[in-house]
Amino acid sequence: MLLSDQQRQDIEQLRGDGQQTRRATVAALEEMLYEPLPVLDHGFIRVVDYMGDDAAVVQAARVSYGRGTRRISEDRGLLRYLMRHRHTTPFEMCEIKYHVKLPVFVARQWIRHRTANVNEYSARYSILDREFYIPEPAQLAAQSRSNRQGRGDVLEGEEAVRVLDILREDAARNYADYQEMLNEDDEGNVIDPGRAGLARELARMNLPLNIYTQWYWKTDLHNLMHFLSLRADAHAQYEIRVYAEAMMDTVRAWVPLTAEAFEDYRLGGCQLSRAALDVVKRLLAGEEVAVESSDLSPREWRELMALLGR
Amino acid sequence: MLLSDQQRQDIEQLRGDGQQTRRATVAALEEMLYEPLPVLDHGFIRVVDYMGDDAAVVQAARVSYGRGTRRISEDRGLLRYLMRHRHTTPFEMCEIKYHVKLPVFVARQWIRHRTANVNEYSARYSILDREFYIPEPAQLAAQSRSNRQGRGDVLEGEEAVRVLDILREDAARNYADYQEMLNEDDEGNVIDPGRAGLARELARMNLPLNIYTQWYWKTDLHNLMHFLSLRADAHAQYEIRVYAEAMMDTVRAWVPLTAEAFEDYRLGGCQLSRAALDVVKRLLAGEEVAVESSDLSPREWRELMALLGR
Amino acid sequence: MLLSDQQRQDIEQLRGDGQQTRRATVAALEEMLYEPLPVLDHGFIRVVDYMGDDAAVVQAARVSYGRGTRRISEDRGLLRYLMRHRHTTPFEMCEIKYHVKLPVFVARQWIRHRTANVNEYSARYSILDREFYIPEPAQLAAQSRSNRQGRGDVLEGEEAVRVLDILREDAARNYADYQEMLNEDDEGNVIDPGRAGLARELARMNLPLNIYTQWYWKTDLHNLMHFLSLRADAHAQYEIRVYAEAMMDTVRAWVPLTAEAFEDYRLGGCQLSRAALDVVKRLLAGEEVAVESSDLSPREWRELMALLGR
Amino acid sequence: MLLSDQQRQDIEQLRGDGQQTRRATVAALEEMLYEPLPVLDHGFIRVVDYMGDDAAVVQAARVSYGRGTRRISEDRGLLRYLMRHRHTTPFEMCEIKYHVKLPVFVARQWIRHRTANVNEYSARYSILDREFYIPEPAQLAAQSRSNRQGRGDVLEGEEAVRVLDILREDAARNYADYQEMLNEDDEGNVIDPGRAGLARELARMNLPLNIYTQWYWKTDLHNLMHFLSLRADAHAQYEIRVYAEAMMDTVRAWVPLTAEAFEDYRLGGCQLSRAALDVVKRLLAGEEVAVESSDLSPREWRELMALLGR
Repeated sequence: MLLSDQQRQDIEQLRGDGQQTRRATVAALEEMLYEPLPVLDHGFIRVVDYMGDDAAVVQAARVSYGRGTRRISEDRGLLRYLMRHRHTTPFEMCEIKYHVKLPVFVARQWIRHRTANVNEYSARYSILDREFYIPEPAQLAAQSRSNRQGRGDVLEGEEAVRVLDILREDAARNYADYQEMLNEDDEGNVIDPGRAGLARELARMNLPLNIYTQWYWKTDLHNLMHFLSLRADAHAQYEIRVYAEAMMDTVRAWVPLTAEAFEDYRLGGCQLSRAALDVVKRLLAGEEVAVESSDLSPREWRELMALLGR
Repeated sequence: MLLSDQQRQDIEQLRGDGQQTRRATVAALEEMLYEPLPVLDHGFIRVVDYMGDDAAVVQAARVSYGRGTRRISEDRGLLRYLMRHRHTTPFEMCEIKYHVKLPVFVARQWIRHRTANVNEYSARYSILDREFYIPEPAQLAAQSRSNRQGRGDVLEGEEAVRVLDILREDAARNYADYQEMLNEDDEGNVIDPGRAGLARELARMNLPLNIYTQWYWKTDLHNLMHFLSLRADAHAQYEIRVYAEAMMDTVRAWVPLTAEAFEDYRLGGCQLSRAALDVVKRLLAGEEVAVESSDLSPREWRELMALLGR
Repeated sequence: MLLSDQQRQDIEQLRGDGQQTRRATVAALEEMLYEPLPVLDHGFIRVVDYMGDDAAVVQAARVSYGRGTRRISEDRGLLRYLMRHRHTTPFEMCEIKYHVKLPVFVARQWIRHRTANVNEYSARYSILDREFYIPEPAQLAAQSRSNRQGRGDVLEGEEAVRVLDILREDAARNYADYQEMLNEDDEGNVIDPGRAGLARELARMNLPLNIYTQWYWKTDLHNLMHFLSLRADAHAQYEIRVYAEAMMDTVRAWVPLTAEAFEDYRLGGCQLSRAALDVVKRLLAGEEVAVESSDLSPREWRELMALLGR
Repeated sequence: MLLSDQQRQDIEQLRGDGQQTRRATVAALEEMLYEPLPVLDHGFIRVVDYMGDDAAVVQAARVSYGRGTRRISEDRGLLRYLMRHRHTTPFEMCEIKYHVKLPVFVARQWIRHRTANVNEYSARYSILDREFYIPEPAQLAAQSRSNRQGRGDVLEGEEAVRVLDILREDAARNYADYQEMLNEDDEGNVIDPGRAGLARELARMNLPLNIYTQWYWKTDLHNLMHFLSLRADAHAQYEIRVYAEAMMDTVRAWVPLTAEAFEDYRLGGCQLSRAALDVVKRLLAGEEVAVESSDLSPREWRELMALLGR
């Protein structure tokens, strides 16, 4: 990720603009505001606005006239209670807005989360930059043999080199052909005055899915945690997980008590099925239980044993 | 609407808390922040938080690194363009949170707008205050004869007195019976130590629909304008329209350029059907057109003539 | 719940109308179609339309051209996999529409589920019937002492009689006053030709929250299960739980494999926090663990021990 | 669009399966059911399920026990009234499900409509087919000079040939490289047993945006009309407009009275701003009005004059 001088200057100007406000304000998040956190080779997330704090969740839960908070220990207890009992609406009272730069194939997964507001850079209207995601060698994983949507071992040696060469060359050529069809060079000058240039909304179809796009993405704290619980999970594709992890850092700065409860009850917790709970009870009662005498499939059995550390 | 000393003190404390922020800040809305704007006899709306300003809409439409704004005239032009062409997503980038006190029958209409976040005071958990909406005499309208969901002339004399007496007496008795069932008086003391008191979640069912409730209600600027276009409209019931009008004042303070465009293109504009447009064209061409030679129903014809001031 | 002759006749007519269709059809649900299932004293739910079946979930998960199903055991396995791993979108491909008659205070809880389509009987436009929810004596619970939003022991003797009398008398009087203000009797005749009658949209405010309303409510299978997981839960208020349980019966008829997976993984399962999982592991390892040596609060500890049957 | 023998056979089997149902059924839509309607060079839409009909809208608006319909002229009048006055919730009571095959860059626009249920073919899990959108020569438009997101004249001669060659060649090479990285040929056989093959979730990033994907897409009639009002509009990109037009055909077959009202009041109608309405009134009063004496911008003036046919 490299910012142009103009972009760096725009960000510095925003960061310098101190204003007085009566709104709830979080010093740790103010510190991060507008500043891009790098993700992948050219991507980033940056917080561009936020509304509310831990106390705003408490305030809404109590429908109070004032800040709603009492002692910090009481607030923490209430937030944990809300998280534990799935009282989700108070968490919807906080809102955050990100500017995200990300490869198109990641954007396609991300946009499936519908409870958010989005404004994406328009390739109908504007010309996309020549920036493509090329994985680090350590991320060049083979197809998993056991999991159709998972990764196996990392490719090595010549095969890795070959893949990286393909990705780089195809991206370069497709982008060059994009410019050729648009009849515009890097500086936005017409290449050949004798030609008209294809419409932007058509030329873009030649670009590969690893090209970077960007958007403003805004959501509330409850829906953000739902997004993070799915995308910061080990089953999520690496290329979106790294975005979720960077966002998790901003959540810890923004609403530390909520973030702690989220990590204790959601990220670090687990779901047991009726049959899995039954196995746990029988084990605790000292019974010998095997997969055959449980109601679990072999795969569920393995998952449960791994979870219980047996 | 009367605030208790504690409530007034809580609000003053919040209003006094000046903080530094790097976020977009609107002085005119800061001025209003936390302060209740009275609506009906005991209700209010008050802005308790907000995110973004006119420039934030522009910033999102441009997916820009900085504030995104240029000259104010350019911003105004872009906002009007977005409003005119129904490009609604940039307006979703601003968010506002209200604390609202309102009669339950108004709350039941209001909640039909689903794209918002809500936390309501819980009568399962807490005891509701003895506050009921009793209309001003000028609002005691008879049933309309022509419109099944409209109001006709104002009731006068004895009939008006009778209605107000009924509303006041039934509310008073139902509330007294609510307390009797709860076995709790105004100060929260047990009335009769020999009784248990009915569960709150049951006792509340005796309260009439004009009792006041309150909630935190948060939505984005696009969905707020959609709400206002329906609820600030002349066809909306008076008791919700007055809330919409108070909210419209806060929108004008918050995002003046957007509010102006909204009033020009949405509130003050109109929708013409294919057949109505055809009538307008024929009239402009100097043709005599009557309802019989149009494709309009008599009702649509009357509405069109009223709209055109003929 | 008592249907009028006209209503019974309307329902019979719909039930008699056999049509040919190429759509997925579920015999067990066709059997229930249009027929009201009684809930509470005057309420009901009835299925008025549906789209899809278990196979439609499989079909969407596979994005297939045909039915998408293979052997029933494979379909069952896939549905359980989707349920276990929170792949929720295929379940959104089935849709169901209910006609529900329910007390207003129940409707106010229900409507908080926003991901549904609703058309409610309008008391602005029409006059509500004289039907009120009066609890069975067995449901007249005292306020719980330990849980602010829960019920304790059942009221007995005179106190119960007193509560039922209040509920009945206040409902009767408020309804009589409603008619008085409307100036309309049970047959819809004008009571006093010398008076105008208050507008319906105003008169309704005198009605108590236990009056019955009705609506058409339509949602998809995923959101329905989310509703049921919250409202068929032991913590839900009894008066909404009985609706959820009746709906659960329709789900079992409609999508039996999905219903089974839902009951195994969601309704009958549980969520363990990070700290609770740690306690389980230590117990399984033979360690003595007490609340003091755990990271759980006393309340969480009690809940965990109850869950584990210790 | 070419179906494989297996796909054709799957569709025929579904079309042959006649079942009895008590649900609302629409013969004209049954006729279309499952059958793909071709769009673009390899795409299609096909209706795979539906719920409700014109009468179901009426039924929900009346919250009725039976079909809710009276004479067809009354139903038509009610549907037109609902459409005219933006009473949108009854239209949400009908639901339709499509299977759509479409280029990825079209899918990226389409998915921005959030109020729908979607299951997309997963390129993390499966391998995409070698099918790319290549425009008809008549669609090879130059960039518009006046509208940054519009099309100008059609490219001709050598320039058109050059563009088509680029699109075809880049697609072919990127797909060949995709297979090379996957180490799998057209038949799914391993190309080189000495190599592992890159994970599918990574290899897909090399594919260009004109590759076809497919999804199940389900929405309600109100949201479908909102989609169509934006995407069947002349300002929409041609490649999505043709999908909207094919869907419009299915709407006409499904709910003819609603479709007629939609075309009269929404598609064929227009929105006038406050200032435009003022110009119309002054013109009708016989006044000479020019852009300078109006409150319209030159662009709005031109649009208004075009609308009025002047």
